[in-house]
Amino acid sequence: MSAVKINFGAGPAALPVSVTEQLALSIRNYDGSGLSVLEIPHRGKLFDAILKEANERVLQLCNLDAATYEVLWLQGGGRLQFAMIPMNFLPEAGAAGYVDSGFWSSDAMENATLWGNTINLASSKDCAYKKLPEIPERFPENLSYIHLTTNNTIYGTQWKQFFNSPVPLFADMSSDIFSERRDYGLFDLFYAVAQKNIGIAGVTLVVLKKSLLTKVVRPLNPYLSYRDHVAAHSVLNTAPVFAVYSALLMLRYISDRGIAAIEEENLQKAGLLYDTLEKSVSFELIAEKNSRSNMNVVFRGIDPETENNFKLFCDYKGIEGIEGHRRVGGFRASLYNAIRLDQVQYLANAITEFDKTRT
Amino acid sequence: MSAVKINFGAGPAALPVSVTEQLALSIRNYDGSGLSVLEIPHRGKLFDAILKEANERVLQLCNLDAATYEVLWLQGGGRLQFAMIPMNFLPEAGAAGYVDSGFWSSDAMENATLWGNTINLASSKDCAYKKLPEIPERFPENLSYIHLTTNNTIYGTQWKQFFNSPVPLFADMSSDIFSERRDYGLFDLFYAVAQKNIGIAGVTLVVLKKSLLTKVVRPLNPYLSYRDHVAAHSVLNTAPVFAVYSALLMLRYISDRGIAAIEEENLQKAGLLYDTLEKSVSFELIAEKNSRSNMNVVFRGIDPETENNFKLFCDYKGIEGIEGHRRVGGFRASLYNAIRLDQVQYLANAITEFDKTRT
Repeated sequence: MSAVKINFGAGPAALPVSVTEQLALSIRNYDGSGLSVLEIPHRGKLFDAILKEANERVLQLCNLDAATYEVLWLQGGGRLQFAMIPMNFLPEAGAAGYVDSGFWSSDAMENATLWGNTINLASSKDCAYKKLPEIPERFPENLSYIHLTTNNTIYGTQWKQFFNSPVPLFADMSSDIFSERRDYGLFDLFYAVAQKNIGIAGVTLVVLKKSLLTKVVRPLNPYLSYRDHVAAHSVLNTAPVFAVYSALLMLRYISDRGIAAIEEENLQKAGLLYDTLEKSVSFELIAEKNSRSNMNVVFRGIDPETENNFKLFCDYKGIEGIEGHRRVGGFRASLYNAIRLDQVQYLANAITEFDKTRT
Repeated sequence: MSAVKINFGAGPAALPVSVTEQLALSIRNYDGSGLSVLEIPHRGKLFDAILKEANERVLQLCNLDAATYEVLWLQGGGRLQFAMIPMNFLPEAGAAGYVDSGFWSSDAMENATLWGNTINLASSKDCAYKKLPEIPERFPENLSYIHLTTNNTIYGTQWKQFFNSPVPLFADMSSDIFSERRDYGLFDLFYAVAQKNIGIAGVTLVVLKKSLLTKVVRPLNPYLSYRDHVAAHSVLNTAPVFAVYSALLMLRYISDRGIAAIEEENLQKAGLLYDTLEKSVSFELIAEKNSRSNMNVVFRGIDPETENNFKLFCDYKGIEGIEGHRRVGGFRASLYNAIRLDQVQYLANAITEFDKTRT
């Protein structure tokens, strides 16, 4: 068994060693404060500084301005966002448009049906989500908002282009935020769970336009109201301090590298792996070529025996988290920002080596 | 300035050094797995084992059995529980009884008013919550449940005795769970944010009777449904892995010491501090004697100058987190399980020393 292990899991995902090292140190003594980062108060100056810097870095990385957008750090993951979005923005008699490109986008829509009407604007469910659906040229009138999922982790597809929406455009960017240059200004609200590209499990980044907060469509419990979270600057109640701090360290890492450089490496990583798999005699790719994700490469063995053998081979090679999602089976290599090109090369080499055992 | 710092904050609260040490190690390499605990999958065998042991320890510590009760680890803090409880258990035409012993219990009730009727069963608001309200001998008929807060962190009061409720009894035990021997079987549902006695900020423990799950009072989004969380065994979506692991380490620490020993030390800690403050010429206690909390000792200076001087004195002595809640001002020393008797003695000595500067 390999002593080195590489985590290609879809989340909780790999973190850069520099980040885990700093997290370990901060647990003993946070920034020379004499306190563990696990003990610092969520309403004190140390955590204020963490939040302030994290918010500023998010807006900088998105090229958005603080006069127009708010940044929130919430708990509950994407699933709570699926509920909060219609609760906050879909009136009972209104309708929201959802683009259905996979399991999570479909689940987001289903959550909205409890609060108002939903319209399925485009779906690729009929072809088992192996490609992106076609966005219609015109949308129904009077939609409260349009929701889409930028990257579909389970099926390995990803939107590379977006559109000017006539109504507020909301996006779940959980699995590809900060992975490429993107016009974040096209979106009125976007969110991302941290455990893929921006930290550890336990916190969700939400960025939204202040102008969304003027309308209230129904009375809401404070924890379920974006307006209340904005008024409380993400500390309506005790924030998940350690998870937010982890996100800050990832944001620093992303800022230091720059999104253009990250995008370039992500293209190289995905290109290398797709090329290797296209040439492989043991595997086949699932997503159609022009829909493929640079974040999650989804593939399967040509038969069950090959799949079993490759699983054992990965264990032997220290390749972790490569199993496909239980809905599609096969394999999935997640190439989030913290995965390096040399680690993808290691996986590609393993695939080539595995191929040789068949011939 | 003292090199040693002691965190008397109300949460995020102090953790035992043995726990922070193990957390720091696990970030580098979790239990010899070769992966950081921040990267282990939430649906893999490593996290399964963490959840299983945490659930078993909770039930053991509560002396409850797994055939009757379920254990959940959720995000969103007490505030999300304030919303979820009425959403799950209060029909629109029904009524729930709330005991109002402080800010949080009152906020829990206010959250419920969005979903059904609420009845204020007993309140000490009129005397600024400086004592516990009187529980009535009889309750209104047909209540869906009764909710109370076992310990009131802001005002420093704590229930020491409970009652057999004719309807399901729910309790927010955020600030005193596992601090004393308690008949947990009196409760049908209780919850506690982790960052006081059982871990770090970012996860909330919920223990509830399976029998509560048979009735559904309205359709709910999955993340807001106890039934869905129970069906998914706390991994409806990505769990806050690190926060749950931190809670497990605290549960091991509590199990190793035993609740009887913890209770005894907590009585000594609180007794020492209350005695010192009663004798002090600089401070006065706020809560009435028979309502006083063993977890949060709330007091104020006899005048503003004394308060300011004591704040500076605490900085000098390395005493952290001692400011009172912004609603009451003054001071608050939180004596959660991880605070040792010798640390309370250090604070008591500082108070006595401070007194001498006045005479």
